[in-house]
Amino acid sequence: MIFKIPFSGRSHHYTFDEKNAVLEAMDIADPLTQGKYRNKFEKKFCDYFKSEYSFAVNNATAALEMAAQLCQFKKNHELIAPSHTFTASVYPFIKKGAKIIWADIDGDSHIVTAETIEKCINPNTRAILVVHLYGYMANMEEIMELAKKYNLIVIEDVAQAIGTEINGKYSGTFGDFGIFSFHSHKNMTTLGEGGMLSVKDELYAKIIPMLRHNGHCDFDFDKPNYWTPAMSNVDLPELNGEYLIPNNYCLGEIECALGIKMLDRVDAMNDEKRSRAIKFIDRLKDNFELKFHRVNNRRHNYHLLVAQMMNDQRDIFIHKMANEKSIQCIVQYYPLNRYAFYKKLGFGNAKCPITDEYFDYMVSFPFHHWLSNEDYEYMLKSTIEVLEELKK
Amino acid sequence: MIFKIPFSGRSHHYTFDEKNAVLEAMDIADPLTQGKYRNKFEKKFCDYFKSEYSFAVNNATAALEMAAQLCQFKKNHELIAPSHTFTASVYPFIKKGAKIIWADIDGDSHIVTAETIEKCINPNTRAILVVHLYGYMANMEEIMELAKKYNLIVIEDVAQAIGTEINGKYSGTFGDFGIFSFHSHKNMTTLGEGGMLSVKDELYAKIIPMLRHNGHCDFDFDKPNYWTPAMSNVDLPELNGEYLIPNNYCLGEIECALGIKMLDRVDAMNDEKRSRAIKFIDRLKDNFELKFHRVNNRRHNYHLLVAQMMNDQRDIFIHKMANEKSIQCIVQYYPLNRYAFYKKLGFGNAKCPITDEYFDYMVSFPFHHWLSNEDYEYMLKSTIEVLEELKK
Repeated sequence: MIFKIPFSGRSHHYTFDEKNAVLEAMDIADPLTQGKYRNKFEKKFCDYFKSEYSFAVNNATAALEMAAQLCQFKKNHELIAPSHTFTASVYPFIKKGAKIIWADIDGDSHIVTAETIEKCINPNTRAILVVHLYGYMANMEEIMELAKKYNLIVIEDVAQAIGTEINGKYSGTFGDFGIFSFHSHKNMTTLGEGGMLSVKDELYAKIIPMLRHNGHCDFDFDKPNYWTPAMSNVDLPELNGEYLIPNNYCLGEIECALGIKMLDRVDAMNDEKRSRAIKFIDRLKDNFELKFHRVNNRRHNYHLLVAQMMNDQRDIFIHKMANEKSIQCIVQYYPLNRYAFYKKLGFGNAKCPITDEYFDYMVSFPFHHWLSNEDYEYMLKSTIEVLEELKK
Repeated sequence: MIFKIPFSGRSHHYTFDEKNAVLEAMDIADPLTQGKYRNKFEKKFCDYFKSEYSFAVNNATAALEMAAQLCQFKKNHELIAPSHTFTASVYPFIKKGAKIIWADIDGDSHIVTAETIEKCINPNTRAILVVHLYGYMANMEEIMELAKKYNLIVIEDVAQAIGTEINGKYSGTFGDFGIFSFHSHKNMTTLGEGGMLSVKDELYAKIIPMLRHNGHCDFDFDKPNYWTPAMSNVDLPELNGEYLIPNNYCLGEIECALGIKMLDRVDAMNDEKRSRAIKFIDRLKDNFELKFHRVNNRRHNYHLLVAQMMNDQRDIFIHKMANEKSIQCIVQYYPLNRYAFYKKLGFGNAKCPITDEYFDYMVSFPFHHWLSNEDYEYMLKSTIEVLEELKK
């Protein structure tokens, strides 16, 4: 099916300067991975988002895999996570031994809250995964208070919410781990794949470079010659008396060079998307059939534009948008516990009535940054037309 | 230390056409990952190297991790591997439960042979890792015969040996798994990171796309609407009655677009490097202190140019090359069993006298493809001068 307005697989186009940054790095970077561009990207990222330590990785799943590894789950340890999220947010924790307890979402913001999380806490709880889904940042102050009370590790999945903040403190800098994504769909993408892992703890910051890059490190003694006993060392990082086996999660220099440039534009792109979202929501304010989440400040970057259909016409609405207007609205995020994937692993049960209801009534509009003004206006007009028609 | 001729961290420069391929994909790819460029890259790769099935991944370690996962090691299962290789060749198998038995190398080619492997076989042996190190392809016919005799899985690590062949059959297409690397150092690099996993077995070929990409797959029933029950499915692949938990090892579209172009040049680059290597070796044929491995056909791509010092002057040779000629010769590959990494995991012991001796006497010359003719001639002249001086 070919759409006039598809739900695009890429978020934005690249500017002349961004393409030049790629070409320049292709010409001069040596090595093409794990060099100066990575270091500069990480430093700029830390400065920008006021993060203590940040490590560029080849995708956000890699950042989650390392966070999960550093959680050191033991038998019966549980992770509290929303089932209303993308699968890669959660399965790395299962791989590292966590049992998953599904937390429900809030009916207005569609993300977890301190309240929905607290209901899942028990003596086996080890960690909390907070996903700032759709680009809306959770109330991290309340969640951190809860985590402190129960002594829990907090992982913030900021994949969709880069640049969001509350009173100047950015998402991803509250929890023990901040997970960022530069995937094709995201508000800022480093050639389609890429991510960042932010941490506050110096101990984690010392271990992560080895975990990321095959255990590479320096020898712990002075080398008489640069080549003896070998060019570089590999060792096993140790945490709480346990060895951690490393991985290869390196992001290339060209992606990092592009990331450095993209950081200059991420606020502007977020502001542009928010401004469009607010205008869309406000123009539809008399169409009560669609309920939006309206947040006109930097706590929301409107990575996605979603609404809940307040009657039973969701499927017919999407159908009409597709077939009569050629606009590809979609439905996100199938509650993870409903997938065969999670059922087979024993995590098919969830007490998440709001999640279930929201998923069955939600609609997500095409909302890539490169949507033209003309297409945006056409989508707005078409949405109103279809809603009006459905009233008849 | 700044060198006139460093041991470069990148293998080659990019042509005008290759840079254009990157720019074009940056402009038009949608999505920026897991799209048409990936499919085209994989198809061209299969056609080129006569591989049944090939899957683009974000680095060669990811390919090894998936191969290790598909080996399904059980308690006491062993992998036979050379200790004379890069660490990422081996640790993914430890992570997936294999015990490592170190095989020695052949004194001339510096890689494992059917003979050195057979000495390590016992009833616990499950798989063999063959590394075509330095760009020299092992005698795969003999090794496959051995594997057949003992019913063993064969993994070919072709990271350094892309395009090498014996009688028109390429390295990476003999074993159950062929591992390719497009890392910064390699003869062909997709922006510094990238890899390919080749398999012959259709069963593996069906599982790998899910293992690579978060378990994504189609639903096993017709969907009445494109959005129900969800846009796409995630499930757990199953092999021999066991579930395998997936990963995220995706390579971006821009890298794939570049890979498509690079395949047109990989033979030429290999031929150029071989021709330079042979000339270097032949010009030094009267300097018996340095023993090279001379193979003037496509079984060797001379990814690296290495020699064994036949007296005790190796360190002083490297020293003089560095300090008097400003040429950065290095030493590769520290036997893995000597690293703290492997000692801590219980694999510190190896009966590999040839490996040990070779490592302690070997030297690796700067041999990146972008080495200028002038620098190449300077390095040749300098090598002879230093060797002559050392005779005095």
